[in-house]
Amino acid sequence: MAENAPASATRPIGVFDSGIGGLTVVSALRGLLPNESIFYLGDTARVPYGGKSAATVQRYSLEIAAMLLGENAKTVVVACNTASALALPRLEETLPVTVTGVILPGARAAIAKTRSAHIGVIGTRATIDSGAYERALRTLNPEVRVTARACPLLVPLIEEGWIESPITDEIIMQYLGPLLTDGIDTLVLGCTHYPLLRNAIARLLGEKIALVDSAQNCALAVKDLLLRENLGAPEGNAGKLQVALTDPPDAFLRVAREALQLDVGEVQVRAL
Amino acid sequence: MAENAPASATRPIGVFDSGIGGLTVVSALRGLLPNESIFYLGDTARVPYGGKSAATVQRYSLEIAAMLLGENAKTVVVACNTASALALPRLEETLPVTVTGVILPGARAAIAKTRSAHIGVIGTRATIDSGAYERALRTLNPEVRVTARACPLLVPLIEEGWIESPITDEIIMQYLGPLLTDGIDTLVLGCTHYPLLRNAIARLLGEKIALVDSAQNCALAVKDLLLRENLGAPEGNAGKLQVALTDPPDAFLRVAREALQLDVGEVQVRAL
Repeated sequence: MAENAPASATRPIGVFDSGIGGLTVVSALRGLLPNESIFYLGDTARVPYGGKSAATVQRYSLEIAAMLLGENAKTVVVACNTASALALPRLEETLPVTVTGVILPGARAAIAKTRSAHIGVIGTRATIDSGAYERALRTLNPEVRVTARACPLLVPLIEEGWIESPITDEIIMQYLGPLLTDGIDTLVLGCTHYPLLRNAIARLLGEKIALVDSAQNCALAVKDLLLRENLGAPEGNAGKLQVALTDPPDAFLRVAREALQLDVGEVQVRAL
Repeated sequence: MAENAPASATRPIGVFDSGIGGLTVVSALRGLLPNESIFYLGDTARVPYGGKSAATVQRYSLEIAAMLLGENAKTVVVACNTASALALPRLEETLPVTVTGVILPGARAAIAKTRSAHIGVIGTRATIDSGAYERALRTLNPEVRVTARACPLLVPLIEEGWIESPITDEIIMQYLGPLLTDGIDTLVLGCTHYPLLRNAIARLLGEKIALVDSAQNCALAVKDLLLRENLGAPEGNAGKLQVALTDPPDAFLRVAREALQLDVGEVQVRAL
């Protein structure tokens, strides 16, 4: 690919999230695509998006995408389930570059994993209320049964650092117990924060339930896209990671950095 | 007061909060000052403020205050502990009207209640990290001992509607247990959401611990201010309540409305 790659190939992949959670996608992208540079914007001044309206999340997403284009992004990755659920069509019709969200890749992976065709989905209130996962899953397989549940307390628990705690276990079971009773065999972790609770969820649900991590599947979709569009960086390229936040970094950035073993370098602060 | 009141007296009191929680202050103001009109702005498009930086919370507070002055507010009430902790001096030096926060009134009430001069304070991370309550309490009584604790999960629990729940009780005890062991005799509920958990906290802490509700004490301070400045509405005036939010209302507005028995009428949506 290196010889044929267009001049644009070393432009960064623009990635955004409402906050820090999208770094799980960045971590997966770094693993799969070490030659790619990444510009990440976390909208920590307005985080979280998960309880907000479609109109507001669309406005915020368009503002951030314009900023990423200003950074010369060759493609935009919406590393946030809420923004993917509420703003992806608006971004696709507005932006001059390709856009990848987390929902379709996660839905594809879930359809590939389920044997009983009964899939559970958890996410923020806005993601679940949007019905975006149900639509994506049913488009892929009209016969699939979907049980969805909003889990608004999981993000604050993760940000509080209560990753392994009996209280967190109780809250997970309060949310997921009904999905188990209902008979799901696959669970989509429909929020980019949730991979940080993956171990606790796997332990509580047992090995019969397959977990689908939207971060890993989104990164795979971006890899496919770059290959298809011949937009990949040349092999010798040393991909750089730049991280910008709209509010100065707080304790949670340290938690995520350590959990993901991600070298984010100096963090810029940008007003939007 | 009616005869001498200036023409400005029927102008509304401008009240703001990061979200819906400040309606606890509105409820207290309506009870104490039925003749006063109130214009309330909840910044639900950017809620919560509790994990954000001082610079960002100051910028948001100044934007909202400008909007309240556009509504002809005769005085501004910061019905948000985080904004009071981080932005009150900036607002006081910038605005052409008086500004009342929730922290000084709460601190005064706590000093009046404590017998052991050992006071506990709970609030958001930003409120607690600012040290604003400690400073206010020590200014009032340099001998006082203060034990403060950030409780970032309480607001999400309240917004999830888990007001009376064994999990909420456990989380309250996880946060407050060390304060009890430490020997406080008075606890300041340093977040305008927390009065909605007042019954649970009182039950768990027992009657030996006095609770100080910043909403009620803030309303009393506003009543004093209007009297002192001769800015009160005339007695026959039927005070109106207008509520505006920066994001369309969600389920939590219903929870708060019912818990506070507050008739908020039609809610406007305003972009900021």
